[in-house]
Amino acid sequence: MTKFMDVHRGMAGITDEQLRDAHDADLAIQAEEGVSFEHAWADPAEGVVYCLSEAPDAEAVQRVHERAGHPADEIHPVPLTV
Amino acid sequence: MTKFMDVHRGMAGITDEQLRDAHDADLAIQAEEGVSFEHAWADPAEGVVYCLSEAPDAEAVQRVHERAGHPADEIHPVPLTV
Repeated sequence: MTKFMDVHRGMAGITDEQLRDAHDADLAIQAEEGVSFEHAWADPAEGVVYCLSEAPDAEAVQRVHERAGHPADEIHPVPLTV
Repeated sequence: MTKFMDVHRGMAGITDEQLRDAHDADLAIQAEEGVSFEHAWADPAEGVVYCLSEAPDAEAVQRVHERAGHPADEIHPVPLTV
């Protein structure tokens, strides 16, 4: 398992409720892909959302996000953490 | 206080020790700017580092990073968190 930071763009105006709903949609299916989403942070002004997860690979992260209806624009393995 | 996610690029090959040293350099001076750095995550392959902090404003985050010798390329307020 590796940590991943993924990035969604074009989310300008996202609300707290929309962020929670999107995160819940990921959580509902993540076990099927062996992924564990830990946190998400949103910048509604610039429309950027960052998601932190643990997953077997980047493809598994993307499968969850795609199935939940919000594919990521970037997915970065972040093996180094402080 | 607001949460901020900042992004550093061009960090390809960063090691665990370099990430820790950079983070420690921020921690050593952050109080002078009213900033609290919470975590950092690095993708050494693509050379991207993400830092999560709480700060009075983005300029304070950048002042810490600049004084520590590693200015951020992007700083996003992330008022929405899951």
